[in-house]
Parts: sequence; structure tokens; C-alpha cells
Amino acid sequence: MSYFTKRYHPPGTSPGTLSEHTPEIMAALQISLLDYTPQSFSEHLIENPVDCAQWLEQDSITWIHVQGQVDPDTLRELGTLFGLHPLALEDVINTGQRPKADSYDDQLFVTMNLPTFNENGELRIEQVSLFLANQVLISFHHGASHPFLPVVDRLRKHSGRIRERGADYLLYALLDIIIDQGFPMLETMGEMIEDLEEELLDNPGKSTLARIHQVRRDLLLLRRNLWPQREVMNNLSREGHALIHSSTYPYLRDCYDHTIQILDLIESYREMAASMLDVYLTSLSHKLNEVMKVLTVIATIFIPLTFIVGVYGMNFAGNSPWAMPELEWHYGYPALWLIMLSIAGGMFYAFKRRGWF
Amino acid sequence: MSYFTKRYHPPGTSPGTLSEHTPEIMAALQISLLDYTPQSFSEHLIENPVDCAQWLEQDSITWIHVQGQVDPDTLRELGTLFGLHPLALEDVINTGQRPKADSYDDQLFVTMNLPTFNENGELRIEQVSLFLANQVLISFHHGASHPFLPVVDRLRKHSGRIRERGADYLLYALLDIIIDQGFPMLETMGEMIEDLEEELLDNPGKSTLARIHQVRRDLLLLRRNLWPQREVMNNLSREGHALIHSSTYPYLRDCYDHTIQILDLIESYREMAASMLDVYLTSLSHKLNEVMKVLTVIATIFIPLTFIVGVYGMNFAGNSPWAMPELEWHYGYPALWLIMLSIAGGMFYAFKRRGWF
Amino acid sequence: MSYFTKRYHPPGTSPGTLSEHTPEIMAALQISLLDYTPQSFSEHLIENPVDCAQWLEQDSITWIHVQGQVDPDTLRELGTLFGLHPLALEDVINTGQRPKADSYDDQLFVTMNLPTFNENGELRIEQVSLFLANQVLISFHHGASHPFLPVVDRLRKHSGRIRERGADYLLYALLDIIIDQGFPMLETMGEMIEDLEEELLDNPGKSTLARIHQVRRDLLLLRRNLWPQREVMNNLSREGHALIHSSTYPYLRDCYDHTIQILDLIESYREMAASMLDVYLTSLSHKLNEVMKVLTVIATIFIPLTFIVGVYGMNFAGNSPWAMPELEWHYGYPALWLIMLSIAGGMFYAFKRRGWF
Amino acid sequence: MSYFTKRYHPPGTSPGTLSEHTPEIMAALQISLLDYTPQSFSEHLIENPVDCAQWLEQDSITWIHVQGQVDPDTLRELGTLFGLHPLALEDVINTGQRPKADSYDDQLFVTMNLPTFNENGELRIEQVSLFLANQVLISFHHGASHPFLPVVDRLRKHSGRIRERGADYLLYALLDIIIDQGFPMLETMGEMIEDLEEELLDNPGKSTLARIHQVRRDLLLLRRNLWPQREVMNNLSREGHALIHSSTYPYLRDCYDHTIQILDLIESYREMAASMLDVYLTSLSHKLNEVMKVLTVIATIFIPLTFIVGVYGMNFAGNSPWAMPELEWHYGYPALWLIMLSIAGGMFYAFKRRGWF
Amino acid sequence: MSYFTKRYHPPGTSPGTLSEHTPEIMAALQISLLDYTPQSFSEHLIENPVDCAQWLEQDSITWIHVQGQVDPDTLRELGTLFGLHPLALEDVINTGQRPKADSYDDQLFVTMNLPTFNENGELRIEQVSLFLANQVLISFHHGASHPFLPVVDRLRKHSGRIRERGADYLLYALLDIIIDQGFPMLETMGEMIEDLEEELLDNPGKSTLARIHQVRRDLLLLRRNLWPQREVMNNLSREGHALIHSSTYPYLRDCYDHTIQILDLIESYREMAASMLDVYLTSLSHKLNEVMKVLTVIATIFIPLTFIVGVYGMNFAGNSPWAMPELEWHYGYPALWLIMLSIAGGMFYAFKRRGWF
Repeated sequence: MSYFTKRYHPPGTSPGTLSEHTPEIMAALQISLLDYTPQSFSEHLIENPVDCAQWLEQDSITWIHVQGQVDPDTLRELGTLFGLHPLALEDVINTGQRPKADSYDDQLFVTMNLPTFNENGELRIEQVSLFLANQVLISFHHGASHPFLPVVDRLRKHSGRIRERGADYLLYALLDIIIDQGFPMLETMGEMIEDLEEELLDNPGKSTLARIHQVRRDLLLLRRNLWPQREVMNNLSREGHALIHSSTYPYLRDCYDHTIQILDLIESYREMAASMLDVYLTSLSHKLNEVMKVLTVIATIFIPLTFIVGVYGMNFAGNSPWAMPELEWHYGYPALWLIMLSIAGGMFYAFKRRGWF
Repeated sequence: MSYFTKRYHPPGTSPGTLSEHTPEIMAALQISLLDYTPQSFSEHLIENPVDCAQWLEQDSITWIHVQGQVDPDTLRELGTLFGLHPLALEDVINTGQRPKADSYDDQLFVTMNLPTFNENGELRIEQVSLFLANQVLISFHHGASHPFLPVVDRLRKHSGRIRERGADYLLYALLDIIIDQGFPMLETMGEMIEDLEEELLDNPGKSTLARIHQVRRDLLLLRRNLWPQREVMNNLSREGHALIHSSTYPYLRDCYDHTIQILDLIESYREMAASMLDVYLTSLSHKLNEVMKVLTVIATIFIPLTFIVGVYGMNFAGNSPWAMPELEWHYGYPALWLIMLSIAGGMFYAFKRRGWF
Repeated sequence: MSYFTKRYHPPGTSPGTLSEHTPEIMAALQISLLDYTPQSFSEHLIENPVDCAQWLEQDSITWIHVQGQVDPDTLRELGTLFGLHPLALEDVINTGQRPKADSYDDQLFVTMNLPTFNENGELRIEQVSLFLANQVLISFHHGASHPFLPVVDRLRKHSGRIRERGADYLLYALLDIIIDQGFPMLETMGEMIEDLEEELLDNPGKSTLARIHQVRRDLLLLRRNLWPQREVMNNLSREGHALIHSSTYPYLRDCYDHTIQILDLIESYREMAASMLDVYLTSLSHKLNEVMKVLTVIATIFIPLTFIVGVYGMNFAGNSPWAMPELEWHYGYPALWLIMLSIAGGMFYAFKRRGWF
Repeated sequence: MSYFTKRYHPPGTSPGTLSEHTPEIMAALQISLLDYTPQSFSEHLIENPVDCAQWLEQDSITWIHVQGQVDPDTLRELGTLFGLHPLALEDVINTGQRPKADSYDDQLFVTMNLPTFNENGELRIEQVSLFLANQVLISFHHGASHPFLPVVDRLRKHSGRIRERGADYLLYALLDIIIDQGFPMLETMGEMIEDLEEELLDNPGKSTLARIHQVRRDLLLLRRNLWPQREVMNNLSREGHALIHSSTYPYLRDCYDHTIQILDLIESYREMAASMLDVYLTSLSHKLNEVMKVLTVIATIFIPLTFIVGVYGMNFAGNSPWAMPELEWHYGYPALWLIMLSIAGGMFYAFKRRGWF
Repeated sequence: MSYFTKRYHPPGTSPGTLSEHTPEIMAALQISLLDYTPQSFSEHLIENPVDCAQWLEQDSITWIHVQGQVDPDTLRELGTLFGLHPLALEDVINTGQRPKADSYDDQLFVTMNLPTFNENGELRIEQVSLFLANQVLISFHHGASHPFLPVVDRLRKHSGRIRERGADYLLYALLDIIIDQGFPMLETMGEMIEDLEEELLDNPGKSTLARIHQVRRDLLLLRRNLWPQREVMNNLSREGHALIHSSTYPYLRDCYDHTIQILDLIESYREMAASMLDVYLTSLSHKLNEVMKVLTVIATIFIPLTFIVGVYGMNFAGNSPWAMPELEWHYGYPALWLIMLSIAGGMFYAFKRRGWF
């Protein structure tokens, strides 16, 4: 994932402009509509956004989910049909938004970031935009696969409280999935960090550095994208929002707790990753010291000896009595060995005493 | 202890779902019930949670302590019996919660983290969950050994104020034990850090690095797990909680002071540990400099000398008068020694002046 | 761009003094006046500031834009004509101001920083000063080219809401351009950082260091200059400003969101840039280790061997039986090779086992 | 001073328990009582705490100072006599408290940390506990020598305002001494840091590292122990405490200013100490570079030359015309010197150009 | 400038004591009195503080400026004459105060820090103390030269608003000079940092390190001394001070903006200076790598070759057919050269491929 993921119109474009972006998601756009009461449940695939109108009059909860990269036309039609604010619509199409919760007159607009790993194990952040109105929830997911299938399932099977409660509880259920996605993700990352740590202390290699850097990068991106959700969830779980029933707040507060716990985890991973780089650098220094000690011991023992044997390799022959008389001495050669061995031994002992090996 | 210790249900599970986790604690689940008034005291082992019902009607304080890894069925029965909130029950079974204090209508739910060292000296965080209701306290400890025995003892022996006061004071007594556990733990860690510091300046080895890293890791985990307790204790010691008697607040404030002091200690240990890594790296650099100076002194003195003796080992014999006439000079050999000694002496003196040894 | 870009009068100068600065911008000063209602639109180039007076009485919105380095006389005349506060005028001419929004009686004075890259790809910060009064907006841009042409265009073409709304909406439109300028700029910088990262891990060179430093410097300057805009936009989007219509606040809040998102991006880029320096240093250490291992392996294998061959190059001839009898042995020479090969092999094996290559 | 200095009861001990600690202070416990009005002054050594009772009824100010390590019995008697809160008494005996100010009904309890250097120049923190009641002040100092002698002196000599004012002013006078003790201490540390800085840039040695680490450690401990005094003094100088006369607040505010100034100084010393370690590491790197350049210059000049002279030391005699004909050339030897000198000169020039010396 | 610059009385001295400090400023003490109305202006040198009394009764603005190191007697007389608070007087004489603004009944007492470079280009902080009372301003400057001459000049020449306004505007004018002194100072430091940066990347030497450290030290001291002025100016520009006319607040707010901008600049300089040390360390590592590569290339190419020529320098003569038969081969010598050249070439190629030069 690259550092800059925001989509934007050229500066100076009129606010609320909806223009096409280069397609990113291969799967076709799919609009599904779920309509339910405690007693009934129906599911529909919508071809044309205006078809949604027929479910609005009824006294049931309607959930419209738009999966994939939405095009300006569809968005504009939905906007007209449900009276959505143009700035909010712009935020749906210009993905890469900072998560936020905005209250318009009789609507609540929430954008969230859903972190996922793609098939190559790379981090991706997918935007989810949610409109809550009276009895209606509209959700947009800029990604390839439907993230809310467990909720669809609970609605179908009538398991848990979800069919008995309003659209606000449905909003909570979706937010809960988005946020809890962080737990399995951070579990994976925690294991990666622990693996890296072991590798670091046992046998660090060149790739270790690249992997530590990659982890720091992912944690940084994750933090930047999830941090504002703290504010969003705090806002949703505190204030007296007109559209949220009081019995839903404990659930939203639970969600808020999870958001904070995830951010706590990210922070402590980040610190550990930073510390790992220090440990790596220090362990490299330690290794360098070891390498240099080996070289120094070998070199300082043999260089003087090589000099000595070089001396007696000189050709000061001639017949001067001063010309290397040692070469003529009877025990010259074994004496030289004795001298050389004692030099080597002395140096060896000196290094030993300094604790070099 | 690994970085990620939170237990969670798959994202999208209905809130309040209680499902079994893989067992972690070997000891069997044990439920004990203590019932006391200033005059009386009785202790019971409970087989079946519903047996607790008989003590509820009485005008005494009842403390139910659940020791070990609680199973969903037991929890559900206790939940029904005492009317506990489903989200709170979920937090009891999904251990690894962020410490928090939640007020439900006529209940106070508190989760805390109890830090311990296991038999291998490894840091572990065990969750304690506490429900305070009128005249009743229910405590869950996800760990192997009962942490509240000193309080049981004080109740038995009728020592101190504890039998005269309500369930809120009992809550305080348990919180006090949980938090004060930090003092002996930090005393141990403080001594470890001081040992490491001495080792660091005297004789740092490869294992020093691993140990510094281990200390930083433990301090990081400890901080992440204890930090939110500050908020919890601040909340409990400030607001006018319906279930807490005004005379208990000074005790809770004392507890809050201890929480802060423990966090202060952790912070200063963390700084010291970070500083130790810097000191280690610097001392490695210092040592490398020493090693390199030895090598350089030996090499720069002997390499030129070896070259010189190499020159006179050449075989430019022939009968040209230009072919190494020095070899024929009468005092050639001793003169060469003089030259070599003065080169070595000069280099030695130059190194001495630069303060290299 | 240098670190210090503030223009100031010598300390002790009377406040509100307008004095000439050395010219920085080559293009001539240009004053343009736009006058519009929903129905009409006219555009004028103004020679003399007093000519603006005629448009003030009318019931239309008047936008006066002063492009280039304003001189004290022009500024003084405009100040008198529109009753602008002397301290605000001083801030217009003393560019390099910290962005701020000041409310005077019936005026709102805003200074902003517009970041641009100049033709050499160097970062520049240009000051924009804006006066909002009833039906009038005056803008000063201390830079070479008109930054608000897209808005002029929207006014001309009557596209979007802009002609229907008041001067406050025009103020918003200009602020929006200034702030959104950050997006393409940060997109470029994000790509630069990603390039640097790749270079860093693949093949870091001397210039990499200078480029990382340059990026950090630019991000630091950008942050210092854009950070206060957060406060400005927060102020403008929150309080009940007399001159701003309530329907404009959602747009200003959108603008505020963009400001925060840009600052978030700058912060995460800054962290990544800091981390890159660590990675660079660590990768240099890694390389040094590799280099030293090569040297050490070669040196420790050949230095002892060179010593041995040196020994048998000595001239202990004479006729003493102690004088290097090895030289006379029948298999002396091949035996020596055997010994040397086994020494070399042993060392090679020892290095291999230690994982040196 | 070690990192962990808090004395505590085993977790689970009943709150308010007063138990003996191992003695730390050699000097005997000494209780002195001072009783004064603007007109009179008397000084008494108290043997038995209950003897204090007789001075309580009178309309004078009574100051009881307990010097040394207080034992549980004495403390309990004083507690009963003056009605002190059991939690406060526990804090007096369990020294190493976090500084705090607690208001009980008609008492104010303050604990402070008094920093001193002991005879070996080591930092020590001594706890001072103060009880202010109506007309009475009780002070405990867990240390060897009376820190408040200047105040005793001012009371004796009737100098300054002190005899005219109440017990609250006396409290201020004691707090003022405790806090101002920081100034001479920080003056000493500032000089130490400046000495270290000079040493660092001129001639850093192995001991420099240990001393920098020691300074960082002391500053860290000092900060941890003095930081909470900011809160304490802020609390005392702001709120409308019943026991403090309004005319004393300006003095307490002055005291608060000193606390902040001392913390500012500690912070800037800490930063400087951290920066010194960076400078040290960098200067070590610089030195290593110098050392390596010397080695490299010598080695790269002489190693090739040694190879060349080695070539002509070979014994390819025989009578092949290909066997080292150079040795037979007339000018072979001087030509070789020429070649070697030009190689050495060329290398020397190349190093010079690269700026290596 | 040293780290500790606060002058203090020994701890325990009675508050408000005024005692002599060792003289620091060579110039004699000079008291000047300026008395002005919009119509009149007179200037007087005062010998004896009591002479000031005569101007107090008049309905004009009186400004008394005390230049140099004030002695306790003069201060005491001025204190009595104008009824100044003893704690404030102590702060005037004990220079090195933390900047602050204190309100006493009918007085406002402000201390500020004036940063200057002395003749050696060293940073100095000089304290300015200001008393504002009704129609009177008393200023003390603990320094050698009068810093407020531009204001004296404006008063003399009747330029600007200053003669029309009250003593509060005069206070503003002095504060404005003190704060704006930071701009030329930071401009100089900004240029120094840019010079250092260039030096750092082009040709860093030993002195670079000392200079970076010096800059960090100066910025640290500057920040510590100027930071509290933010609070002072915020306080003065916000609250409803009795002695400050409402029309002066916009000017004080402008002053506050300058304070913040100066602190912003200091912060970004500090970050850049910290980053420079990192860059320096990294560039040293880079250079070390280069040096080591040169050494390693030369050594690994020639050490094996030297071994080879050493082999054929051995004296295994004798008449064994195993004794170095190579020496007798017809093409032995040129073959050896071929072998050696191919070894050297192979190594050279291997280094080239690894990108070592």
C-alpha cells in the first residue's frame, strides 16, 4: 500500500462534484437490498437505484448495501432518492477519507476504514461509508468482497437480537465488524514481530532489516488510518444522537473500547518495532567487534613474526663479520623459533587477559 | 508472554455470545462463597452456581469468587442468577480485556489486570473481573492460584475494619491487592535493571543485549496492561457511584495514588532501559576503537619494516655495480637495524603523542 | 527555501508601520476586481485603488484580488478605502506570518500559507491574506501566478452554487483551493519517499543521504507553515462568526477535515523519513560487516601462510645440522604444502561454521 | 540511590497498618516542639509524644518536628493525640511516597521529597511529611539532619514576618526550604554537565560514558521524585483551603513558580545529557575514521610494494632465459626503486586528493 | 552562557529579602525618568530614587527606567515610594527568573527575558522587570545597554500613537521590543544552521560536531528562557486586566502571535539540529565504509599474491626432485606471472560486480 491513498478532485473544483476515478476494483458493482421486520425478511439484488424507492414507504428496516467501486451516476441517483448531502456523496466517491461522523439534519454519515491483507499479504485499507436515516441504512464498501456477510447471515437466521432492533443497531453491527477486523490482523502482526525478534537475536540477515522496515511502515499506515476512528466511535457512543436509541449506546461503547484497545496494540507494536532496529544496529556492532578482534589477534601475532623471518631472508652475505652473523650461529635457527614462539605466546596471553576471546 | 493476548470471537459474532476457548489453565474451576456480617462468617465451596441463590436473600455480605478458566455454562447461570449484563459476561470470558469500569443500572463491572511472574520468571497478565451489586461481590480470576487469600484471612480472623464495612469496601480490598502486586514486581525489575547497568559498564556481552531487550519488552507489556487502570481508579475514586459509600473514597484515592506511582516507576524504568541500549552501543564503539588502535599501531609499525627487509631479500645479484651494493657494505646490516629501529621508534612516538595508548 | 522567511520591521518600530521590502517577485503588481450577482458578472483591471470605490455602493458581491508584491502606498489606500485595521495591513506586507484568523469589528482577517514547488522543484510558501467584510472580499497573494483561477472560472461560467451565495462562500472557495493544494503536493512527496525507500534497501549511495535530509527539511518547513492552519480552520468552522452564513459552515468543516488529513499525512511522512535514516545507518553497518568479513577471512588465512613461507625463505645456511634441516628433507616441500593447505582448510571451515559466508 | 525506594507492606495488608521497617537512619529519633506567639517563643525536646498535649490548649502556634526514622508506636500516639487519619499515618512510615496534598476534614496532609547529596556525592531523596491543623503544624523528616534550622532560627530571632503569621505561613516556610533546596543542587549539576561537555569534545575517555550515564540516571530520579510537587504546589496555591489565610497565597504561588523553574531546569539538563551521548558516539565514529585512514594509507602503500620486493626475492634461478631476467639487468635494482617510489607517490597523491590527511 | 543562571538566596532566607549579589555588569547604574502628555515631554536623569516623587502627583504618564545592576538600597527606596510588593522586588534583584506576569492589587508585575548575543557572539539572556501602575511604568533592565531607545525616540519625536496613549500602551511597546528581538536573532541562527548543513553534506570535520552541539545548546537555552513568555503574553492579551485599556488588547495579541511564531521557529531549528547529528553520524559511517573498501580491495588482492611470491622465495634447494621443481621449469616465471595476474583480475572483477568501486 502506498503512502498516499486519498482520491481528490483538482483543487478548485466545485464542492460536491462527483466525477469518475480510474477503476481499481475489478468486480462489478453490486447493489443488494435487505428488508426486514422481526417477523419478515427479504433479500433483493437491485439493478437500478430508483427501484429502491418501493421499500421506503413500508414500516420495515431497509438496508441497502453497495459493493464495489460506485460510479457517479448511481451515487447521484441514490443521493436524490434519499436526500443525501452533496459533500457526503463526494466523500463516498473520493475514497481515502479520514474516518468521520457527520450529522446532517435527519441523517448520520459515517466513513470508516476497513483494514485487510490482500492475497499477497500486503496491507490494504478499504473505505466503508454508511448513511443512517430513519428506518434506512445505506452502506458503501469500496472493496472486492462483501465484508458484512456474518450480519446478513444473522438477519437471515434471525439469530441474536438484530431483527428486533432498529437501523441504529444495524449500524452498530456493521461498525463492530469493521473494528473487530483489527483483532485477527493484529494477532498476525504480533506473531510476525515475535518471529522477527527471534531472528534478530539469533541470526539477523540483510532481509531482516527490510522486514522490520516493512512492519514499521504497515503499522504507521494502520495507525494513521485507524486513529481517527477513536474520535468517531467516541462521538457516536457519547452524544445524544437523534437517530440512535438509548439501548444501543452500551453496544457502541463496547465498540469504542475495542477501538482503543486496537490503537493501544498498534502503539506498543510500533515501539517494539522501533526498539528492534536499535537492537539490530547494536547486534551488528557487536558482531563487527568480534570480527575485528579475530583479525587483530591474527594480524598482531603474525605481522611481527613475518617481519622477523623477513630479516633472516635478507641477503647480506658478503664477507663482512657484521653481515648477519646470526645466520652462522650453531643454534641460530632453533633459537629464533624459541624467540618467535615466546613473542606469539606473550601476545596471545595479553589478548587473553584483555578478554578478547 | 506474547504481544497479543486478547481472546476474541470472530468479527461479526452476535454481541454477548459466550463460547468456549481452548483451555489455558490446568487447575479445575473452583467457586467459593463467603458470607459475612460483623458477627458471623461462613465459607462454602459451590458445586453448582444456582446453589448461590440461598445466600442472596439474607442481610449479609456475600462474596462469590470464581477461580480458574470459567466455562460458558457456569457463566451463563451466574449471569441469569444475578442479572448480569451480557456484554459484561462476554468480557469475563474473552480475557485480555483493556481494564475498565462500567456502570450498569444497579451494578458496577470492573476488569483489572493482575501482573505476575510465572515459575520461569516470565511476565504474565491475568484478568480479574469484578461485579459489585448491593451486598454482593462476584469476582473472577483467570489464573491458577487464588490471589485474594490475604483478604479471606482478614475476613476469617476479623482483623481490621473489613467485616464492619459493606461490599464496596471488599471491592476496594481486592483492587488494593491487585494494584499493590505491582510493588514487589517493580522492586524485582528495578534490581534487574541495576544489575544490567553494572554489567553494561563493566563487561557487556552478547547476552546483555538480549536481556536489555527482554526488560524493555516486559516494561512495554506491563505499561500497556496497567496504564488503563489509572483511568479506572480515577473514575472509581471520583464520581458519586451509587454503590460506593462515601467513607470508602479515601481508600480508593489511596489506591489511585499507588496506581500512578507504579506507572511513574514503569516510565522511569523504560527510559533507563532505552538509555542502556545507547550506552551499550556507545561502549561497543569505544571498544572497537581500542581494538582498531592496537591493530593499526602494530600494522603501521611492522608493515614498512617488512617491506624494507623484503627489499634486501631480493636476488639482484649479477655483477652490475648497481645491483644492491648495500648488501656488500661493511656495516650494511647493523645500519639497516638502526634505520628500522628509528622508524619504529618514530612511529611509536607519533602514536604516543596522538594519545593512542 | 530557507528556514527563516519572516519579514519584519526593526524591533521598536511603531506598530502598523508599512515600509517597503526588497522586491522578491518579478511580475508587476496587478489588481483585479470581480463584481457579481446571481444574474450579472463583470471583471475589471484596476489601475488605482481608489477606483474600487464605485463598486462598493452596489448591492453585489465584490471581490478584489491583489496579485504580486504589494507596495505600501497601494496598501494604505486600500486600507483607508475599506477601513482595514493597521495591524492587519502590517501583516499583509510583512509576509511570512503565522496563519491566523482575527476578527475586527465588522471584518474578518485571515492569513494562510499556500505551499508550492517552484520551477526547480524547491518548496516555497506563499502568503495569502484575506479580508472579509459585508459583501466584499479582498485577497492578497504574495506570489507570481494567480492561484484562484478555477474560482474565477466558476464565477464566469456560473457553474455550481458560487454565484448564488455570499462573500463568505467565496472566502470558503478560496480557502478550499489553498488547502487542497496540499494534496497534489503530498502525493508527489509520497512518491519521492517511496522511491527513496526502494533505493535505500537496494542500493544506497552518498546522494541518498542528502536526499533524505532534504525531504525531512521540506516536511519540517511544511509542517511549521501548515500546522497553524488547523487552528484557523477550526476557529472559522466552529464559532458563530457574524459575517458567515450558517449554510457555509458544513463547507468550512469539510475544509477543516482536509487540513487535518494533510497534517496527518505530513506527520506520517516525517516518521517514515526519520525511520529511513535509521534504516540507512543500519544498512551501512551491515555492509561494513560484510566488507570486514571478506578482509578478515582473506587476511587470517594468508597471513599465517605468508609467515610460514617466510620461514623457509630464511638463509640459515651454514653447515650447522640445526640450520633449517627441513630444507634438506626429501619430501619437505610437498609436506609444507600439505601443512599449509590443511591450515587454510581448517580456517576456512572455522569461518564457514561461524556463518561468515 | 536505587531505582526503587518505596517502602510498602505486603499486598493485602489491612490499610492503615503501621509496621516497623528495617532501620535506615543511624541517628536517634528526636522530637522537638516549638511554641510561639508574636510575643513569646519557647523550645522543648519531647521524650514522650503525649507530653505534647499540654501545648495544644493554649492560643499559640505549636510546631512539632519529628526528626529521624519514626517508629510505629510514636506515630500511633501522635496520631491519636491529634486525630490524624490512619491512611496518612501509613504514608508517613512507608516512605518513598509520591508527593501529594490530601485534605481531611480539618487537616491538610502534605508529603514532599527533599533531594540531597550524601557525603559521597550520591543523590538521595528524603521524605518530609507535614500535617497542618488549626494552630498546629507537625512535620516528619525521614533523614539524618534537621533541614529546617534556618526557620527555627528566624523564629528564635523574631526576624521577618514569621512570628506574626499563623501555622499556614509556617507550612509555607517549610515548603519553601524543601523546594529551594533544588537550586544549589541544580547549580552543582549544571557545572558537572558543563565539565562533561568540555571533556567530551576535548578528550573523551571510557569514564566519560559512565559519568554521562550517571548524570542521566540522577536527573531521571530527580525528575520522577520532584515532578508531582508541581501538582501539590499548584493545588496548595490555587484552591480556597480552609486552613490557609488568603495573604499566604502569594507566597505559595512564588513557591509554585520555583517548583516549575526547577522542573524546567531538570528537563533542559536531561535533554543536554541525552544530546551528549549522541555527540560522544559521533566523536567516537570520527576517531575511528581517523584511525582507519592511518591504517589504510600505510597498508595500501606498503602492501603492493612488499609484493613487488617479494617477487624479486624468488629463486627462479635455473638457466632458462625466462627465469627472472630482470635480476640480471644492469639498472634493474635502481629501476625497481624508481617504480616503487612512483607507485608510493601516486598512492600518496591519490589519498591527498581525497582529503584523507 | 552557562546552564544555570538563576540568582537565589540560600534556602530558608526570609521571603522578600533583598541582598547584594556579586556585580556582573560593569556600567554604572543609571535611572532615567520620562514624563509625557500628548502635548509635553521631558527627560531627566535621577540621582536619588526619592526625587521621582515630584512627578507622581501630576496628571502625566511617568516612565522610570533603571538601567544596569540594581542595588538593594535603590530598589528598597523605589519599592517604598511606589508601594511595590516585596516578593516582586526580590524577583527584580534575583535575576534569572522564569518570565511571569503577576497581578497585585493595583499593580501589574511582569518579568521578561531579553535574548542578545554578546560581543563574542555568545548567547546571553538579560532580565527585564516591569511594574505597571496607574499612569506609571517602572522598568528594570539587568544589562549593559538601554534596549528601549527606539521607544524613547518615538516619545521624543511624537511619532506614531504612543504619546496619545496611556502607560499600558507604553508597557506594550516595551514588550514588543523585547519579543521582536527574537526575529533578528533567529534569522542569524537560521543562517548558521544552513551553513552547517552545507558543510555537513560537503565536507564535515571535527569542528562541525562542536558547532552543531553549540547550536543545540543555544537553542535549548533560548527555548527554556522564552517558552514561559508564551504564557505571560497569553495572560496579558486575554484577561480583563484593570490597568489595561481595551484598545491595547489587539496590540498585545499581535505581540502574542510573535511570541508563538518565535517559539515555532526555535522548535523547528531544534529538530533540524537534531537531524543534523544523525546525518553527520550516517555520513561518517558512509565514509568509513569507503575507507574500508579501499583497504580491503588492496589487501585481499595483494595478500594472496605476496604469499605466492613468498613460496618461491623459499630455499628448498637440496637435490631432491620434490624440492620446488617449479623453479627449474623453463616457463616457470612467466607462468607464475600469468597465474598471479589472473588471480588479481578475478578478485578485481568480483569486487566490481559487488559494486565496491
